[in-house]
Amino acid sequence: MPAVHVLNGPNLNLLGKREPAIYGTATLDDIRTELDQRCKARGVDLVFRQSNFEGDLITWIQEAGAARAPVILNPGALTHTSIALYDAIKGAEASVIEVHLSNIHARESFRHHSYVSPAARGIIAGFGPLSYFLALEAVLASI
Amino acid sequence: MPAVHVLNGPNLNLLGKREPAIYGTATLDDIRTELDQRCKARGVDLVFRQSNFEGDLITWIQEAGAARAPVILNPGALTHTSIALYDAIKGAEASVIEVHLSNIHARESFRHHSYVSPAARGIIAGFGPLSYFLALEAVLASI
Amino acid sequence: MPAVHVLNGPNLNLLGKREPAIYGTATLDDIRTELDQRCKARGVDLVFRQSNFEGDLITWIQEAGAARAPVILNPGALTHTSIALYDAIKGAEASVIEVHLSNIHARESFRHHSYVSPAARGIIAGFGPLSYFLALEAVLASI
Amino acid sequence: MPAVHVLNGPNLNLLGKREPAIYGTATLDDIRTELDQRCKARGVDLVFRQSNFEGDLITWIQEAGAARAPVILNPGALTHTSIALYDAIKGAEASVIEVHLSNIHARESFRHHSYVSPAARGIIAGFGPLSYFLALEAVLASI
Amino acid sequence: MPAVHVLNGPNLNLLGKREPAIYGTATLDDIRTELDQRCKARGVDLVFRQSNFEGDLITWIQEAGAARAPVILNPGALTHTSIALYDAIKGAEASVIEVHLSNIHARESFRHHSYVSPAARGIIAGFGPLSYFLALEAVLASI
Amino acid sequence: MPAVHVLNGPNLNLLGKREPAIYGTATLDDIRTELDQRCKARGVDLVFRQSNFEGDLITWIQEAGAARAPVILNPGALTHTSIALYDAIKGAEASVIEVHLSNIHARESFRHHSYVSPAARGIIAGFGPLSYFLALEAVLASI
Amino acid sequence: MPAVHVLNGPNLNLLGKREPAIYGTATLDDIRTELDQRCKARGVDLVFRQSNFEGDLITWIQEAGAARAPVILNPGALTHTSIALYDAIKGAEASVIEVHLSNIHARESFRHHSYVSPAARGIIAGFGPLSYFLALEAVLASI
Amino acid sequence: MPAVHVLNGPNLNLLGKREPAIYGTATLDDIRTELDQRCKARGVDLVFRQSNFEGDLITWIQEAGAARAPVILNPGALTHTSIALYDAIKGAEASVIEVHLSNIHARESFRHHSYVSPAARGIIAGFGPLSYFLALEAVLASI
Amino acid sequence: MPAVHVLNGPNLNLLGKREPAIYGTATLDDIRTELDQRCKARGVDLVFRQSNFEGDLITWIQEAGAARAPVILNPGALTHTSIALYDAIKGAEASVIEVHLSNIHARESFRHHSYVSPAARGIIAGFGPLSYFLALEAVLASI
Amino acid sequence: MPAVHVLNGPNLNLLGKREPAIYGTATLDDIRTELDQRCKARGVDLVFRQSNFEGDLITWIQEAGAARAPVILNPGALTHTSIALYDAIKGAEASVIEVHLSNIHARESFRHHSYVSPAARGIIAGFGPLSYFLALEAVLASI
Amino acid sequence: MPAVHVLNGPNLNLLGKREPAIYGTATLDDIRTELDQRCKARGVDLVFRQSNFEGDLITWIQEAGAARAPVILNPGALTHTSIALYDAIKGAEASVIEVHLSNIHARESFRHHSYVSPAARGIIAGFGPLSYFLALEAVLASI
Amino acid sequence: MPAVHVLNGPNLNLLGKREPAIYGTATLDDIRTELDQRCKARGVDLVFRQSNFEGDLITWIQEAGAARAPVILNPGALTHTSIALYDAIKGAEASVIEVHLSNIHARESFRHHSYVSPAARGIIAGFGPLSYFLALEAVLASI
Repeated sequence: MPAVHVLNGPNLNLLGKREPAIYGTATLDDIRTELDQRCKARGVDLVFRQSNFEGDLITWIQEAGAARAPVILNPGALTHTSIALYDAIKGAEASVIEVHLSNIHARESFRHHSYVSPAARGIIAGFGPLSYFLALEAVLASI
Repeated sequence: MPAVHVLNGPNLNLLGKREPAIYGTATLDDIRTELDQRCKARGVDLVFRQSNFEGDLITWIQEAGAARAPVILNPGALTHTSIALYDAIKGAEASVIEVHLSNIHARESFRHHSYVSPAARGIIAGFGPLSYFLALEAVLASI
Repeated sequence: MPAVHVLNGPNLNLLGKREPAIYGTATLDDIRTELDQRCKARGVDLVFRQSNFEGDLITWIQEAGAARAPVILNPGALTHTSIALYDAIKGAEASVIEVHLSNIHARESFRHHSYVSPAARGIIAGFGPLSYFLALEAVLASI
Repeated sequence: MPAVHVLNGPNLNLLGKREPAIYGTATLDDIRTELDQRCKARGVDLVFRQSNFEGDLITWIQEAGAARAPVILNPGALTHTSIALYDAIKGAEASVIEVHLSNIHARESFRHHSYVSPAARGIIAGFGPLSYFLALEAVLASI
Repeated sequence: MPAVHVLNGPNLNLLGKREPAIYGTATLDDIRTELDQRCKARGVDLVFRQSNFEGDLITWIQEAGAARAPVILNPGALTHTSIALYDAIKGAEASVIEVHLSNIHARESFRHHSYVSPAARGIIAGFGPLSYFLALEAVLASI
Repeated sequence: MPAVHVLNGPNLNLLGKREPAIYGTATLDDIRTELDQRCKARGVDLVFRQSNFEGDLITWIQEAGAARAPVILNPGALTHTSIALYDAIKGAEASVIEVHLSNIHARESFRHHSYVSPAARGIIAGFGPLSYFLALEAVLASI
Repeated sequence: MPAVHVLNGPNLNLLGKREPAIYGTATLDDIRTELDQRCKARGVDLVFRQSNFEGDLITWIQEAGAARAPVILNPGALTHTSIALYDAIKGAEASVIEVHLSNIHARESFRHHSYVSPAARGIIAGFGPLSYFLALEAVLASI
Repeated sequence: MPAVHVLNGPNLNLLGKREPAIYGTATLDDIRTELDQRCKARGVDLVFRQSNFEGDLITWIQEAGAARAPVILNPGALTHTSIALYDAIKGAEASVIEVHLSNIHARESFRHHSYVSPAARGIIAGFGPLSYFLALEAVLASI
Repeated sequence: MPAVHVLNGPNLNLLGKREPAIYGTATLDDIRTELDQRCKARGVDLVFRQSNFEGDLITWIQEAGAARAPVILNPGALTHTSIALYDAIKGAEASVIEVHLSNIHARESFRHHSYVSPAARGIIAGFGPLSYFLALEAVLASI
Repeated sequence: MPAVHVLNGPNLNLLGKREPAIYGTATLDDIRTELDQRCKARGVDLVFRQSNFEGDLITWIQEAGAARAPVILNPGALTHTSIALYDAIKGAEASVIEVHLSNIHARESFRHHSYVSPAARGIIAGFGPLSYFLALEAVLASI
Repeated sequence: MPAVHVLNGPNLNLLGKREPAIYGTATLDDIRTELDQRCKARGVDLVFRQSNFEGDLITWIQEAGAARAPVILNPGALTHTSIALYDAIKGAEASVIEVHLSNIHARESFRHHSYVSPAARGIIAGFGPLSYFLALEAVLASI
Repeated sequence: MPAVHVLNGPNLNLLGKREPAIYGTATLDDIRTELDQRCKARGVDLVFRQSNFEGDLITWIQEAGAARAPVILNPGALTHTSIALYDAIKGAEASVIEVHLSNIHARESFRHHSYVSPAARGIIAGFGPLSYFLALEAVLASI
């Protein structure tokens, strides 16, 4: 089985420091560590990346799609503005699960629309770091 | 721990027969059976209900809230039209996970908005019956 | 041939008493009687129902769909607010003709949009009780 | 009784050739022939016309109105763009039944609004050529 | 004089428990008791009902209209979504005063529009239980 | 207790002469007289003012706020256009009940939105002069 | 001085017969006659035309523009739908006064926007036939 | 015959100085002088006023309405924002002709809507000072 | 190969005279001459037409579709208002390239939407007469 | 150099008392005193005014424009509703800097649009009283 | 003559692999090869670039503008979201032809608006790789 | 005191060359030089950066936030499209003053909305390079 690609968008490197009332105190490294353990326990490789650049995320989705690797994608604020991410998923025929730490529908109205969702296999939002772990379950359940 | 309440809205009794290209071939009974086994394995009781009446769903959410019981709610089409469900969740202080079998964001635009989401703890959509099982994982992870 | 199901939504029990300038003086019973005679003359059974509850209408559409019975549906005000009726028709693969006594497009703007129409086989509106009789003609012409 | 005027708008001369998946294989001549027979059987004259010019339709509606003749109008694409047709019906006090072969509410969103409907006596849509025949029944039922 | 009908919509049975910061601590029973005393003091009968079902409210409005009885209606969340309530009031020619405990215009924007108001005699909102008592004064002042 | 301030906006001086079908035949003086009597009976002073100038209303609201005096405000057409009135109420921390003679929600759509409501304690509309008297009851009930 | 061109759009041939409550009882011929007399009195030629075809109006505006002749244009319903009329005026550099018999701003909302106005020298609406005579005054005053 | 009231709104006192490319070089005094001469020639009195205060215009419209005097009103920027002017005209049953120096429909989009127009007898816009003189003709023609 | 049909909509006969700052100084005849030479050089026949009537363009598109002839269509202002042109292209299964002399996206916002584009094979806009010549290249490249 | 005109709109007289969480505790007099000192230090005269009347602000802007005096304008709530202020600035060719104490873009959505901004030389918002002092710097830097 | 710059945005590197039903089977390298040959045949240099980063495209447009080099730009999904590309073209005074492989107006509605078009010299869309070659013709025709 | 960070977004490197009618002739280097002198005079360090990449700006805002350094941010076109910048400011708890050279509210409508403003301490726009210098004053005044 190809490695699971977990891709994180802009500002997710702030996790744990950034607005803990909304995002909790776990850091992105905490999430990576936990995912790593769960992947190892299941004998699956993990690729875990973060970038503040839309261009990086597009390229990484293309790579994952080419490798037929499942993607867990937290696009951050690009969720709401990037048609290019949508095109990358569609164009690379990547199998993507969209995750969000917070419940984006309970926040500002500009966070209610996602350009990524229509291209995603499914969406998990609002569970904090658990959103990632549930997504991993979904990936593994589909193998 | 109080029983997990799994509440299903209008037309979900058609599952398996209804538009299988969108909703798959599993019936609502199949989902109930699988949830029942998973709950038993974890020592948790399951309340599983379906109704075509908004009034029933409101009443059931109120009951679950009063019992401090976690709710997994698939509101069906009421997702997009019922402010009363939102009020029931808020008013009863119920802890609700909203689930959808299909990826509602990849369908008609009138399915893109959910009145329930802002009152929900989290949202899981697009994984077919797996949406329910992931929600159960989320419920159990929070105990 | 299965019975023709004529299903009527909220407030249609007021017909004849309710705003006669808009809806005329015929009662719902008058319409049922006339439909009954026409059905008898054609050797077709008639099921004629009315409810103020959306849940009843959903259930009845599901029943008609399961019986492969043609439906003549006057959803009343639910026409403009109920996605669940749309889902019932689609989900039960019911063959539905939408009828309205009044010309809904000549009234308040919130009556101009119908959630039911996209799922209906056809629409007949504005002819008073004659709307039902024309719908019956359409049903019989398709046998 | 004055002749029934059946007026057809732009592109309806393509009927039978044009997008048969949507409009069926009957031609406009087939519809005229069938209407003619039905009219003859009832002792009513038929005026049957088609034009690609809005100006012709306006003029014909005015003529029908002046003759107190009932009109069955399929405005084609002008349904959605022509306020002048609305004015013609209102101005000439014509009694008009609006018909459509297809269910315009199940198609592109720009076909969901009709400028003609508010001036029409009633609307029949989605039954193919049967839409015209039902309209004829409605006309004859009102005499 | 016919009895005053006080009709309450979905979730109003939660009153006192539900979001006291918005709705106060008085229960629906407290309101009924106070209304009962005031009615008795004025020699008027009181009918006091609550339901989570739109269909019940429609039926009760029809009954009140038929009895020429004044109605004090708190439609809860149905205020913003139910055209059927509007039709019931118009169709039954019921004399309805719309009341709200909270100031709906100071809350979420989806609470700013009421389908009921255009059919109501008047609106009283924002005074907590006092909204009902003022409505009763208005009813009694009109006798 | 400070005097009750009853403030009236543009064109309310026309009352009784202006569109009696909408506003009734009572004049603003009639309302003042009746309010005066009711206030005297309760031992409360009354300040009653009308102006066609937004600036006057702003100043009067500021004065009432500074005096901790309750305000009954009929802003007339300024209801729908004046953010400055909203700011005056908020800025002066005035306790304001918004009243309207007519049911503004049953009239032109530009009368459906009120800038004043979100800053008001409550709203009473549609009862003619009775709207003022009910508001006075609400003021007195809160003392 | 070139002749004054008075151009009339769809349905204006119905004038006097059409909805007299809105348009009055004068016919288009009455207006032509009165304009003719006024033009003769001032020594100016008159070209007076009506068509139900947008193409005719475009062509006539082009002709008037080429002749440097002033135009009084009542576009009828094309006012609200025809960008081609706007282009004709701009393209032919015609000097156009837009007239309407009725006050289009006091009617249906789809009559509130004019594609012609931004290209017109001025607008006169709501005076019945007097609208034309005032426009003629404006034309003559500019010579 | 009562005097003709010519009422001018905010900033019209700048006329002649203000943006001459849009408004021309004639001052408001020039217009008053010309109107005065024309009124004298016809034996009619003229009341000519300007204010930067909405409240003044409301009061003056009320006065004119009470005197059954015809009004020529250039509301300036209040055209687009003042519902109170609309109410004054309706409430005082004033007969008002709305005039504008410039073609408001060829300018910024926020100048395309007029709250005054639906209450006006007619509208004349785009002719510079001539707009006023044509309005006077309309007033005199109606006597 | 069938002749190339070049069809021009309303006001294109003004080309060269009309707003040269936007459309250039070449006339429609200049374009026809140049196209003629290029077609002759390639051994292809040319049909070149212009009309101010929508009905003509509909008919011509139907003719070209029936002849399987490629169409270069400049719909002029009808681009933005005519659903009937869209229907003609779809109904006649015509292969149409939409051309515009000017860059319609750099002009008024009402020129940004095209009803024709979704039915066209491709769009070329903004190159003046060169738009036509590039379209001809596209037609010839597809043979 | 002409005096600097600092003009303040409705409710700014409440400053210091009004919603200190938003506006701070400095009063308008404190700001005037500080501005006065700064102006004196630079040898410039200061005109400092406040009114709750739009008409006053219009008049004062006209006066400043006529005197070629720079204006620092805090329009208060009129920012969002007054086209007449825009017209005054444009008409009087006044050089205006728009200031706000609070960051209007971080508040209610109806405060996000300013009619004044397009006519202003620049905008300074969100710095409390410092907004005024920065504006004064801008005025003095331009001399 | 400066080299022709052909700049390609996000995901165009997927061409040939990505959704061939929409974009065809030619790769971006195939297009570069064909353009290279055509440029060589005309004695023009070619710069051909692709990036998934908006920042690269901005920089490259600036470079081309500085070199007075013509640009053929396929912005991919940035077409619909990037005002910065618009600013780059305007700011660098680059001469840009916008190309698209697919007919963006026949696809999802979020692809109908282009921020780039208003700054482009012209637009060519829907011809697959031929779009680029036609753009090259347009560039060469303008030399 | 930490260094003042002045961060500039896409295309600001074109300053002085780019559309001088809008942006003036000063280059970004001129602004940096002037800011440098002013900072030195006040004993404050300056970090001055520009990038065409959103990712760089996000990273730099994060760095400034981590260093508790005040930020003067000119986001260029990203102002109107980047939610990620908003998140960076909020997430890093950076103290940001938003500056613009031009008055964005007097330009295209797509420049009227700023995603950055709600997260900014204040906004200064329209003063050319002086916008930066005023922002520096604001920074220094807050120390």
